[in-house]
Parts: sequence; structure tokens; C-alpha cells
Amino acid sequence: MSMHDQKTVAIVGGSGYAGGEFLRLALNHPHLNVTQVTSERNAGTPVSMVHPNLRGRTNLKFRKAADLDEADIIVLALPHGSAAKKIAEYEARGKIIVDLSADFRLKDPEVYRTTYGEDHPTPEKLGEWVYGNPELHREDLRGATRIACAGCFATSVILALYPLLKLGVLLPKDIIATGLVGSSAAGASASDASHHPERAGSLRVYKPVGHRHTAEAQQELPGHFPLHLTAISTPRVRGILTTAQAWIPDGYSDRDVWSAYREVYGAEPFIRIVKVAKGIHRYPDPMLLDGTNYCDIGFEMDQDTGRVVLMSAIDNLVKGTAGHAIQSLNIALDWPETTGLEFAGLHPA
Amino acid sequence: MSMHDQKTVAIVGGSGYAGGEFLRLALNHPHLNVTQVTSERNAGTPVSMVHPNLRGRTNLKFRKAADLDEADIIVLALPHGSAAKKIAEYEARGKIIVDLSADFRLKDPEVYRTTYGEDHPTPEKLGEWVYGNPELHREDLRGATRIACAGCFATSVILALYPLLKLGVLLPKDIIATGLVGSSAAGASASDASHHPERAGSLRVYKPVGHRHTAEAQQELPGHFPLHLTAISTPRVRGILTTAQAWIPDGYSDRDVWSAYREVYGAEPFIRIVKVAKGIHRYPDPMLLDGTNYCDIGFEMDQDTGRVVLMSAIDNLVKGTAGHAIQSLNIALDWPETTGLEFAGLHPA
Amino acid sequence: MSMHDQKTVAIVGGSGYAGGEFLRLALNHPHLNVTQVTSERNAGTPVSMVHPNLRGRTNLKFRKAADLDEADIIVLALPHGSAAKKIAEYEARGKIIVDLSADFRLKDPEVYRTTYGEDHPTPEKLGEWVYGNPELHREDLRGATRIACAGCFATSVILALYPLLKLGVLLPKDIIATGLVGSSAAGASASDASHHPERAGSLRVYKPVGHRHTAEAQQELPGHFPLHLTAISTPRVRGILTTAQAWIPDGYSDRDVWSAYREVYGAEPFIRIVKVAKGIHRYPDPMLLDGTNYCDIGFEMDQDTGRVVLMSAIDNLVKGTAGHAIQSLNIALDWPETTGLEFAGLHPA
Amino acid sequence: MSMHDQKTVAIVGGSGYAGGEFLRLALNHPHLNVTQVTSERNAGTPVSMVHPNLRGRTNLKFRKAADLDEADIIVLALPHGSAAKKIAEYEARGKIIVDLSADFRLKDPEVYRTTYGEDHPTPEKLGEWVYGNPELHREDLRGATRIACAGCFATSVILALYPLLKLGVLLPKDIIATGLVGSSAAGASASDASHHPERAGSLRVYKPVGHRHTAEAQQELPGHFPLHLTAISTPRVRGILTTAQAWIPDGYSDRDVWSAYREVYGAEPFIRIVKVAKGIHRYPDPMLLDGTNYCDIGFEMDQDTGRVVLMSAIDNLVKGTAGHAIQSLNIALDWPETTGLEFAGLHPA
Repeated sequence: MSMHDQKTVAIVGGSGYAGGEFLRLALNHPHLNVTQVTSERNAGTPVSMVHPNLRGRTNLKFRKAADLDEADIIVLALPHGSAAKKIAEYEARGKIIVDLSADFRLKDPEVYRTTYGEDHPTPEKLGEWVYGNPELHREDLRGATRIACAGCFATSVILALYPLLKLGVLLPKDIIATGLVGSSAAGASASDASHHPERAGSLRVYKPVGHRHTAEAQQELPGHFPLHLTAISTPRVRGILTTAQAWIPDGYSDRDVWSAYREVYGAEPFIRIVKVAKGIHRYPDPMLLDGTNYCDIGFEMDQDTGRVVLMSAIDNLVKGTAGHAIQSLNIALDWPETTGLEFAGLHPA
Repeated sequence: MSMHDQKTVAIVGGSGYAGGEFLRLALNHPHLNVTQVTSERNAGTPVSMVHPNLRGRTNLKFRKAADLDEADIIVLALPHGSAAKKIAEYEARGKIIVDLSADFRLKDPEVYRTTYGEDHPTPEKLGEWVYGNPELHREDLRGATRIACAGCFATSVILALYPLLKLGVLLPKDIIATGLVGSSAAGASASDASHHPERAGSLRVYKPVGHRHTAEAQQELPGHFPLHLTAISTPRVRGILTTAQAWIPDGYSDRDVWSAYREVYGAEPFIRIVKVAKGIHRYPDPMLLDGTNYCDIGFEMDQDTGRVVLMSAIDNLVKGTAGHAIQSLNIALDWPETTGLEFAGLHPA
Repeated sequence: MSMHDQKTVAIVGGSGYAGGEFLRLALNHPHLNVTQVTSERNAGTPVSMVHPNLRGRTNLKFRKAADLDEADIIVLALPHGSAAKKIAEYEARGKIIVDLSADFRLKDPEVYRTTYGEDHPTPEKLGEWVYGNPELHREDLRGATRIACAGCFATSVILALYPLLKLGVLLPKDIIATGLVGSSAAGASASDASHHPERAGSLRVYKPVGHRHTAEAQQELPGHFPLHLTAISTPRVRGILTTAQAWIPDGYSDRDVWSAYREVYGAEPFIRIVKVAKGIHRYPDPMLLDGTNYCDIGFEMDQDTGRVVLMSAIDNLVKGTAGHAIQSLNIALDWPETTGLEFAGLHPA
Repeated sequence: MSMHDQKTVAIVGGSGYAGGEFLRLALNHPHLNVTQVTSERNAGTPVSMVHPNLRGRTNLKFRKAADLDEADIIVLALPHGSAAKKIAEYEARGKIIVDLSADFRLKDPEVYRTTYGEDHPTPEKLGEWVYGNPELHREDLRGATRIACAGCFATSVILALYPLLKLGVLLPKDIIATGLVGSSAAGASASDASHHPERAGSLRVYKPVGHRHTAEAQQELPGHFPLHLTAISTPRVRGILTTAQAWIPDGYSDRDVWSAYREVYGAEPFIRIVKVAKGIHRYPDPMLLDGTNYCDIGFEMDQDTGRVVLMSAIDNLVKGTAGHAIQSLNIALDWPETTGLEFAGLHPA
């Protein structure tokens, strides 16, 4: 490939898991050329010291954010609140900005304030950003230069519910979504909660009510209905398994659920409907998705009560973060949508 | 202790996990003297070959069920359907019968038929059995000679909900209970589903709808409301964490939930209300309960919506099976209720 | 790519983990076109029912071995002893045969007899096969049509020791190699030993002495010295971490070990020397290698005693089996050696 | 039991895992009455906030070490180096001192200096302490008032080797001991190395050479022979599995190994020889020992080479730390040796 087919990329905040995962995917992407990765704490260190899977794959060293040069694409992998406060600086250095944090996901500054407990620093810019969910916003993403990547739990909830709500297959009744989340979702910094002896055997309800991704999911999902989220940490490192408990109108059956998913997702390259009559892999399972950009979706219906259990599984760091971002960039830049995201996942794993 | 303080015990079907766990607890119980353990497949073999934790603790060998002698207490740890079919044989050999299976839990033969897909072989006997849940049936258990031990997932659901339903703190609205279950709940026999490479990293929805314990829970819980169960297997070996999503009437608050739990469970020796404002052990976690007879219960409320997330954690083989049985026996035989169940659990674990 | 750049591939015995992994890698390989996969038990079933990571990646169905058609390359992923017994049938159907089992690894029929407890069925053919270890036999592999892929534990032992033995950096003294092995190494069939509740928390010495890979390693390693293997199963699904305890002659230091590894492996595309002064990823760790074809090698020396601890880590199903095979095929067919083996591995994982 | 049968206990440094485990065992010990637990960081907090398994078991609160009152027994559970520096203060407050750290284990101040890199602060006191290993020092422990509890990895090495070295069943040749260690051995403080995403799937060689417990083991084991230790962390939380590779003289067989173990350990209450011809629990496995005071010992011999693989398994926090301490106290105070240590361990676990 000639150099002019490539875009230069700078990753700001590249020592965390989101930035590291973007880097891993970008190094394998024929159109992306990562030229800079910043980390205040690790400036001067080879990135492979922090991301040891990249040994032999890159000679890049971390630099300080203050030394950020221009790049075609700037990827912000910073803690919540950091990207928005300095967004002008990043805009001055790159044409396309991809933010992996929550800073630009919400359209309504008032919802932002309620959700994050402070005023948005640049509310006037919120309208410039496209919510980085290719399944819902593919057309908006074409040519986009501001991409606010969807949250990981939100993505698993949205993708499970969207077709059914769009096509009216669910009652406007309380939906309960329970997310079983791996430890990498809490980030790369050690804490009491992440201490292996306290975490390895734990099933820990860490957000029974009040999860911030509720706002994202409500913004993106069609219709008016109450949505309730509960998040539980599991012994896995990666992955989210979400079950969403919802209700089918009288006269509807599981065939309508099938139809809705097929109609909306039939051409999606990264969504697979997983619902098998027998065997041990009958429904979505994050075990199969580590490192992949798939969202597997399944369901089961209780004909007696109209309850339907929707299930979705993703790798929180790929389809939930960095893979989503790459997929969105592929669309924005008119590259084949699966470029750099071909990994099939391992079995057994 | 003199011998006349002890009851002899025969465990029928002692090579599985439920029977093995009852044996472990009984060997440490000052009033129980296990004299027989049966296993068709392992007859003639020392029990410590199958339950290697009991090496040096017992010299018992398995015998065939056909060689069962009399005992004061007969504990049936058999697959579903086996106990009821031969119950007369067991009744001929022991005064007290404890059944760890589902055979005698349901009072209504019609519900049994709907739930288990066949007619109950001895419906006339169902009324003789006490449902072995000490928190709900302590008075009935005193002097009882037929104890049908509660199911493990059912126990976690019942104990989380009972006080609130009894005291009217919940709306009569759909309750969704999601159980995260360890692999030991599926028993001691190897299968494709239990093959370590397929199971170790899995989060597998194995019963999204139609869980059989729904019938037990509905029988035992007061009031009329729709109850929905979903069961998911996790990488743990033991333990169940259940979250029950329910709804508080207008004007009620989390203080009413507290009060209800305190009023009903305040004197319970094996129930702990776990709801801590800070730290990493804020809610019930099965990690802390392996080997113990505790049921830890917690909750969190969403004041905006009236949603309350109830949580319960147990060891499925102890409070969910064998410990429950011992506790019930302690009550039936008028021994101190915690006898033989003193183990506090490990931390870290 | 035009079709004439591709070779057709038939995988015989494709329902196990080795065959499944070869299939996964081959589906992503631009020069390989898998046209047949056999499985007696699953004939007629889509391969993605057994290898659910391949959902949406292939429409292949299993067929019976009796229906095997011709292919350019036949990959045998059969239990030990099966390939050799019917080798003439496979030779009649394909020009290039790759055997993933142990049948054609040993050159000496007498060693085979001692190791596997029976006479080799076709000893006259043993000389036709190249031992499928690219690092040791790259030249022999060019144009090879019979490739006997190295065993997984043997590979980890051989790659750790080879440069030092070749260059005389080790004393001809007892070498103890201890392999920590994931559960996938025991194959895809459920057994008592693989039952999750028995395996998840286990550290089980399953082959303290008498490991069959000793013969392979001794055949391939230069010089005469006693080699002793111990294999222990761990809670991981994939991966082998081997520590080899060996002895440096007087006057040698860790610089000589460095030099030997660099001299022999300096140009190897899949070997990385991992020895870092600080941080938590100082030595090889199979955690980082799931799905990759790397063998990471490290060491540490005890200057006082001359003891050197050599360490190697691989994914047993990739560098230990299917990746090794692909790498060998790439050499045999003069394709770039890393083709189809580009996956970098995940972090965290 | 009357109060005068009890000794009061103060645990200094009770917020770590060693102190917490001692507390758990002591609360269940009929002759021990824990009256004080110190923690500088948690002073004023209930101990059950830090050790949540003890909820409902104790109302003790942490106090500062400066507020330490007198007690019959003072248990020091402090970081290395802390106990020795202030030993006079503790001696002023209690008649019996039990130190769980390494401070008083080594008899020779010069070995201490070489091992720990600094001069011992009170070398004149080293002779007053008994090494807290009941199997080797039972007689010395009777009436002892200074007990230096053995290190966890050292214990697993010593107990595997002691009978064979004592009775001359091993050659005076290099012995390689490889310890597979759970994450709790690194203590209760979070670190990069203990961060769950980095540790959960890891097999990490953390001390290939130069392990400090080498000095302890060499001090305690009879005879002169080179001993080499390698320590590897595993995904378990508790437990150590040690394999010791050693050599039998010509003319000896595995019967001599059996005899030696039986002769020396035949009457030991907490040592079990585990060597079973068939089944999946043939050798020691820490899986079975969580929470117990057992050391399981097994072996296998390679008749061709004279190599013998000795294996030992313990719970590092019980037989490796707090249980050892209780057992030593039971001997010192002439209580039945198994008092408070009756827990059999779980299966499955």
C-alpha cells in the first residue's frame, strides 16, 4: 500500500486499556499509521513496556501530551471529563477527533449535568459529534470528523433492544438490563476493588441502580419506556453479558423477535444472532468474543407471560470501545467496514 | 458426649456433591453419626476416594442401596424423581427422612405435574412433608419426620423476597430474579457443558425462562404477583448471587426495606443484612460464603423510580442444600440450631 | 488474489481443538482454502456448531472420513495412533500431508515402541517426515510434503534449551523441565478430570515422571544430557509455561545465555526474548499469548550456583500445534513465513 | 468452658491476611479469647469491615498499636522487619509472643544479614525463639514463649523433604523445588502486580532464583546438599503446590520413600500422604486445602533415573501461616494439638 492511503494517528492517553486496545487494532490496520502515543506517567518508555502484547510489533515510545504533534486522526483515551476540557487543543492538531470517553456522547447538556454531576465545559460543541454506534448511525458517520464512541455497557444494552423498540415489538413497560462485566472495564489502575485476592472469586454488584450509561441508552433507543440498569462484576477480565428483561405485546411471538432482529441487523457485519436449539453454545457468551468486534445477540421467550429475555455479549474493550471506534472510522473514511477487525475469536478460550 | 445423644445417619446417593456435603457437615456434628453411605457406582470404595477432602476423616466405604440397613435418619441425595418412587422402602428403614431432591417440595400434585412433566408417584404423601426452609417453617420443623429440603436457587429467591412480601413493602408487580450460579449446581457428573475449556471462561445463560424453582418460590412466597427467573452460569464452582428487581409503593423508602428485613430476620442465626456505605464488600458476595450456612442479603433502592434491587448470596451446596438440611434437622431434633454449621467462611477466598 | 494462488485443504478429525484451531487459522490465510472437514460424530453438522467462534465465518459442514475427497493439503488432527494406521489412504488423496499427532515425530521405531508401548505400524515411512519445528528444521521444511508437527510441551522445552545446548552454554547435567499446562491440552472430550468443579481451582500434577514428550525433546536437542519432565495442569484453558532448570559452566554468565539466544533466534519471526529489569511483565507469560504463534523465552541466573532458570511460554494450540503447522506449511510452500499468523495477542487477557 | 481456661490474645497488625486468618481461627478456638486487634490505618473501624467473613462473629474494632494493652499472647502479624525493631515493647505486654513474620526464624545473624540485606536489630534474642514448625520442633515448642512461625513456601519445601533427608533416602545432590503460589501470598495491599486484569490469567515466574525462604529451609533440613527454589504465581488465591525434584540412591525404591514418610509422619495429625493409583485426586492438590491446616504430601519415582518428584500442598495462610501458629500454640500451652483446626476443607471447591 502506498503511504498516501494511510492516515496518521495520535493516541492521547495511551497507557490505559482503551488506548492500548486501539493501538493494537490500529497497528494491524492497513490505513492507519500510529505515529504518536501519549502518557504522562510513562513518557519516554516504549509502549510495549505497558502493553507487552505489542513486543516486537512497534518501536513507539510514549511522549507527554504537551509534545503532541499534528496527526490526521486524534484518538482521545482519557479519563472522563478530560477530553472536553481541552478539546480546542486537540482540534488544533487534528482534523478527525475520536473520543473514547463519555464527554461528547450525550446531546443534551442538561442530561449531561444530571448524569455526571457537573456542567459540560463546552455544551455548544455537543451537536458536532456523532454517537459512534455504526449500527444506529452509519449514515451520520460517513465523513464524520467528530466521533464520540459509545459506552461499553450502553452498547450491549442498545444493540439488544434497538430493533425491537424500533419495530414496536416491545411493550412500553419497565425493561431491566443486567450487565455482567469483566474487570478490565474498571481500567488499568490497581485499586482495592481490583486486588486479585478480593476479585478473583467475587460476584460483586457494583452498580445496582444509577448507572450512568442509562442516559446514553435512553438517548439512543426509540420510544418512551422506563429502562433500569444493574451492573455486576464477574471473574472474567474482558466481556459483558447483558440480559434485558422485556415484554412482548399480546399476539406477538418469538417469530416477531426473530424478524425484527433480521430486518434491522440482517446486513450488519458485526452482529450475529445466536439462538441454537441444542448444544452448549445456545446463546451469546462473551467467552467467544475476546478480541473480536462482534456483538452476539440472542433471546428466549416465555410464551405464558410475554416475557422475553434478550441477551447480548461483547468484548467491552473492542465492540465496547476500540473496535467500535475503528469500525466508525472505517465508515467515516469510506474504507471497508471490517478493515482491521477480522479476528474471529478463540475457541476454546 | 454419650452415644445416646447421637442419631445414626444413612446417606443414600452419597457420591454426588449434595450427599458429599451432607457427609462433610455430619462428620463434624456432635449429634450425628453417619454409619452408611450408598453409591451404586462406587460400592466397596472408601468415600474419601470420591470426596478427597475427607481423607483421614472417615473410614466409611460406599455400599449399594440394596444393602441399606436401618438408621435413625435417612438422607436421600438422589437425582430428581428417584426418592419418591421408592419412598416406602426408605420409610421402612428410618424414622426421619430428609430428601435433598425436588420430589416432595411442592404441595400441589398438579403444580408438580406442570413443573416436572409427569405425575407425582405418591401424591397422597405430599402433605406429610415440611418444606425445609427454617426461616419460613421453623415451627413446622420442630419434631418433623419428613423434611423436603428447599432448592438452592429457590432459597436465594425466597429469602430475598419473603420479608418484603410478608409485610407488604413490595408492589404486586413483575419481579425479575436473576441467579448467577456456580458449576457445582449441575452436579458431579462430567458433561460437555461442564468441560473445563468450555466452562472456565463462560458466562452462559442456561435457563432464561421456565426455571423449575419458580414453582417452589411461588408456593412459599406470600401474596399474588408474577415472579420471573433467569439462571446464568458463572466461572465460580460454588455459590449463587441472586438479584431480584422489584418495586416499592409510593411513599415507601429504603428505611421500610431495612425495617422489614430486621423485623423478620432480626433473630435469624444464618441471615446477615449486608449493606455497607463504602469499601469493596458493600453487598452480598458468594465469594465469602463457600462452606458456610449463611444467606447474606442486601439491597439498594432507586428513589426516582421505586425500583429496589434485592440481593442474596449463598453457597448452593450448604445454605442451598446440605446446610439447610442440617439446620432443619437441628430444629426437628431440638438441638441448638447452629450445631455443626459454625464455619465462618474464608477471606480472602 | 487469484484462485491459483490457493491450495485446497482437507482437515481430517476437525471436531477437536487442534483441528478447530487449524481451521480458524486457515480461514484467515490467503493461500489456504479449506474445502473439507471431517468428523465421524458430527457429520452433516455445520462446523460452527462445534467451533462457535467461526459463526459467520464459514458455511462448511462436517463430513465422514469415508467421504474424503482429494485436496492439495491433508491435515490430520486425529488421536494418537490413528494417522499412521491409515496413512496410505491419506497419501492417495493429497500431495502434502501434515500430521498434528505424535505418529510420525520420532525417527527411531525402537524409541517409538518404548515411548508408545506398541510397534509403529509403518516404520519404513518414518524417514520421509520432517519434524515440524521451523526454528530447528527450516531448511528441511522447504518443499517438504510430510510434516510431523511437534508436540506442545516438547516445543516449549526444545525452544528454551536448543540455543544453549547447541552453543555449549549448558553443562551436560540433569535438566529439569516443569510444564504448567492449560486444560485444552487434554482435548475436547469431557472427562472426570476435566469436570469444571474438579478442575477450576486445581493445581494437579498429572505427569510427574514418564512424560512421552521426553523422547521427542531428546531426539531434537543436541548433545547428551539427562532430561526430566514434569507436567502440572493449571486453571488456564490455553497455554504452557515451562521452566527448565539447567546449569552453566564455570566462567560463563548470563551474558553468554543472552548471546546464545540472540545468535540462534535473532532472526526468528515468532521468538521473543523477554527479560525485563522491572515491571510486572518481566518474563514470559502465557497470558499474553492466547491465539498467537509466539514463543516467548526468558531466563534468570543464580550466579552463586551456576543454576539458570530458562522459561518459555506458548499457546499450546497455536505455537504448540496448529500455528506451528501453518508456519511449517508457509515454509514448505515458499509463502512469507508469518502469513496467517499475524495476531498479536491481547492485553489484558 | 470457664473463663480461666482461656488466654487473652492481642493481634498486632490485624488488617492483613495473616492477621485476619489468625483472628478467624482464634475466634473459633475454645481456649483463645481475642481482646485486641491493631491496625494503624483502620483504627476505630470494626474488624469485620476489613475481614467481611467475620460479620456477625465479632464486635471487635481495630485500635492503634500505641494503645496496645497487656495480653497473655501477643501475635505479631507485621511486615518484615517491623517485629524485631520493637520487640521489647511487645515483650513488656505479653508473656507469649508469636511472630508470623520472618524476623526471628533464622538462628544465625550472618545468614539473616545475607538473606535480608541488613543487620538483625536484636541478634542476641534470636536464640530465644523456637521455629514454629510442629513436625520438626514439637518438643521444643512445649512451654515455648517465643514462637517464630515458619514461612509458607519454606514449610511446603521442608515438609516434603524432611523425612527423606533425615533418613538418608536422598542423594546429596541438587534439589530443585518449584512452588506454585496463590495471590494471597503477596498480601492484602493492591499493586500493579495484583491488579485483577493482569493477574487473573497469569502464570508469572516472580522469583526464579534467590528466594529468601531458601535460608530457612536450609537451616531446618538435615544434611548438606544444594537446595534451589523457584516461585511462580498462579491464578489461585490461596495455596501452594510444591514439586521438589530429588534423587534416590541406587538400590532404593519408592517403598523406601513410603517408609520414610510413614516413619516420620505416621502420627502427625496434619500430614496426609496422598498417592493414589487411579482417579483424578492422585496427588496433593491445594484445591482441597483452602481453610485447612493440612499439608498433603505425595511423590512419584522414575525408576530408570532415580529421580523422585516429591509434592506438597498447603494453604499458605493456614498451614503456611496462621494455622501453623495455632498448632504451635496448642503444643506450647498443652492443649490438644488439633484444637481450633478441625475444618476438613471443601470438595468441590
